[in-house]
This record gives sequence, structure tokens and C-alpha cells, in this order.
Amino acid sequence: VTQEHITAGIVIIGNEILSGRTLDTNNRHIALELLPLGIEVVEVRVVPDIEEKIVEAVNALRCQYTYVFTTGGIGATHDDITVASIAKAFDRPLVENQEALSIIKNHYNDRFNSIRARMALMPENVTLIQNSVSRVPSFQIDNVFVLAGMPSVMKAMLNDVLPRLKKGAPFYSNSITSNLHEGVIGDALAHIQNQYPAISIGSYPFYNSPTDVGTTLVLKGKDTHILAHATQAILSMVYEFGGTPVVERSV
Amino acid sequence: VTQEHITAGIVIIGNEILSGRTLDTNNRHIALELLPLGIEVVEVRVVPDIEEKIVEAVNALRCQYTYVFTTGGIGATHDDITVASIAKAFDRPLVENQEALSIIKNHYNDRFNSIRARMALMPENVTLIQNSVSRVPSFQIDNVFVLAGMPSVMKAMLNDVLPRLKKGAPFYSNSITSNLHEGVIGDALAHIQNQYPAISIGSYPFYNSPTDVGTTLVLKGKDTHILAHATQAILSMVYEFGGTPVVERSV
Repeated sequence: VTQEHITAGIVIIGNEILSGRTLDTNNRHIALELLPLGIEVVEVRVVPDIEEKIVEAVNALRCQYTYVFTTGGIGATHDDITVASIAKAFDRPLVENQEALSIIKNHYNDRFNSIRARMALMPENVTLIQNSVSRVPSFQIDNVFVLAGMPSVMKAMLNDVLPRLKKGAPFYSNSITSNLHEGVIGDALAHIQNQYPAISIGSYPFYNSPTDVGTTLVLKGKDTHILAHATQAILSMVYEFGGTPVVERSV
Repeated sequence: VTQEHITAGIVIIGNEILSGRTLDTNNRHIALELLPLGIEVVEVRVVPDIEEKIVEAVNALRCQYTYVFTTGGIGATHDDITVASIAKAFDRPLVENQEALSIIKNHYNDRFNSIRARMALMPENVTLIQNSVSRVPSFQIDNVFVLAGMPSVMKAMLNDVLPRLKKGAPFYSNSITSNLHEGVIGDALAHIQNQYPAISIGSYPFYNSPTDVGTTLVLKGKDTHILAHATQAILSMVYEFGGTPVVERSV
């Protein structure tokens, strides 16, 4: 059974992430929502509110991956340049999207004004993304989904988008944490990885304190049978080296 | 007074960040440490443990920015391919670094083995980065600093690196939070931004609940006089629109 490998890139847009003022959590939320759909996030770029940088990142990723998600920069102020940059990346004019304008007018009612009307400017030929939190919609343009930066709004928009996506074979993963050091198990682990090329085995050491040191081994793959065998091999290895394993399984 | 604009790019290496298993906080830590040195982080890329992707990202950023910091993938297991990938990016052979080997031997003592010895493999002609937490050093190669992924070790390595960096004029910033909406202040804000081109003004709306909504305006610049004037203009604007401002100042 061959199935298309479905991939995604994410472009996080915003000076506040780059400066460290804001810790980005959107990247992780999107990755965790895509994982059970069998869509793998392969690259993330964080870029400033500079048109040239946004255009470069979006164009680089939309050609390489099945889907691209952008977050940030779609509000009503001078520093929100994502929409214009996306139009430029696709070489399409910015036009007043009548469907978006109608949603915005209806939502703001007597607080509707020319500033809020600008949020209806979108590239030509887009499909709206609904926003169940603060109502102002965003849009999908070809394989690029333009999402808000505010986490609550980004999540609402992503919920509207998920049903539109092609699904891949889901990934399954098991993780095994023990008190063993990478420098002890490294060779045995590489041997198991070589035996199970269909499973990706990641090794993540932790060092919480001088007495709380060890390694989490994460196995990931699409075939649950092979995954079970590889997990068993890892467990045997941990016992062989005198470790005490804790296993977590997830879909 | 013209001063060189000192910039940085960050390459976060690791499948665990892309899959959402781990929330990256290294990016933010590095940005916050560089800010008072007047070094601006201009781009971040998160890439998987795939040599081609690491080489591409490191080579793209090291040509564009004063410094590049990589995090992740420098341990002793099969999935730690950062060091070999960096050697490839610079087209230099991997050699056993004798200074690193001596530190590693000394640290592990009777637990030294061939797996741990592999952590002394580094590209030719590098400068070591010391690690006060778990001792195994990393390295600087030209303008690229290769740091660990584990936050405690990354922080220790970054501390060793900071004194080596050229400093720029520091950035100063003020932030003004109020209950005003972007859709109300947008035009007045753009007007102030146009009056103060030397100050970058970012507008960050928040939507904590239907009754806790507003905007944080962040002013950033290198000239404290101009910054003070622009901040005063923003404050006047907030009062004019009937808002209640809360001001935070930082260096």
C-alpha cells in the first residue's frame, strides 16, 4: 500500500517572536493537529514583518510542501503586511473580497469603519477561512492557509481548515524513557535503527539535575506491526543495559 | 553616529520540535540574550534531522547574517547529524578535535568509551564552546555557533559565546497596553509610525475573553530621545481615544 506523503511548512510572521517578546506556541499547535491526519510538518520559518522576507519564505515553502500555513500579521494596523505580501508572492492584485466585507460589516455593525473595512482586502480568487472567535475571516490561496497570530483565533481558523486537507496514513509513535545515558546505549540503538528503517527512532537526552539524567527514545512510523517489533527491541535493549523503562504510546 | 547593524539567524534542528512533541524555548532564550547586546534576530528556521535540510538552512543564513546559532543534534546517537552536516555545509573534513577529546576523556574518566569519543569529531579549524553543565564541548566555525538542544546545556554554551560577539547599539523598547481595539486606533497609529520612522511600532491585539480585549503597542528603537517622544505621542493617542494605558519600559 503506497500512499502519498503529505507534508506541511509553517511560516510564523512577526517581529515579536523573533525578538523573544512572545513565545510562539502556534507552531506546536498546528503540528499536533496535523499529526493524526498523517500530515508531517517538515520545515518552519520565523520571519520579520518585512515584505521581502515573507514573500521569500512563502514561495520557498509552497513549492516544496503539500500545504503551507502562515500565522500572524493579518490585523488592521500598519504593521500587518502579511496579506499584501501573500498577494505579492502569488503575483495577484489585492481586491475587496465582498464575502469577507459582508461578514465584517455584519459583525461590527455600528462600529464598522474604514480601518476595519481594510481587513476585507485579499488577493483575487481566494477561499475564505472562517473565524468563530473574533469573526473577521482570513483566506486560503491555493495550498497556502493564512491564519491569525493570536492563538485563540489561529486555533479557530485551523479548525475551519482541517476538513479541507488531504489525509495521509497516520503516524503512530511510542516513547520509552529510562535512566540510561546516550553514551552507553548509542551503538545498540543505531543497530536497532538499522534493523527497522521504516521506523524513525529519535533519542532525546534530559538533564534535569545531576541525579535525574537519562534518555527518551521516540519511535515513529506508519506500520503498527513494525512499530511494535521495534519498540520491543528497544525495551529489550533498555533491560539489557540495566535501565528502568517507562513506556508511553500515542497515535 | 552610524553603527554596524548586527544580525543573527537561528537554526533549530530536530524532528521533535517539528512534530510538536517538544515546545522550542531556545529560540526565545537566544533572542532575549542577544537583544541587550544590540544583536537582532532576523530569521529562524526549524528543520528536521536531515542533512540536506540542515546544510541548506545553515548556508542560507550564514551568508545573510552576522551570526548564526544552531541548536540540537550534537549528542552521541545515530540521529545526531548536526556536526557532520555543518562540516558538509563548510566543505571541511570531520576530524578528531584533540582539545575536545581531552575534555571528554577527563570528564567521563572510567566511563569513557568509543561512543562518547565520537563527540570529539568536529570540522577542521574550529574554536571550542565550553559547556559548564554536562562538560562535553561544542564549537564555533566561522560565524556559526553550534549549540546543544537541551535548554540547560544550550544556555551554558551561549554564556560561553556571548563575550565573543560584536555588540551593536542596544535596542530600547516601551510597551503600552490598553483596552483600545486595533480597528479604532489603526489610522492614528499609522500616522505616528510615519512621524517616527526610526522607531518600529508593533501592534499586538489580545483577546483573553469577550470583556478582556485590547492592544499592546510595542515601540522599539536605538535612540532613547526619539523613543521617548514617540512613546509620548502614543500615550496621547490612547488618552484621546478614551483608553486606559499601562506602560512598561525595558532596555
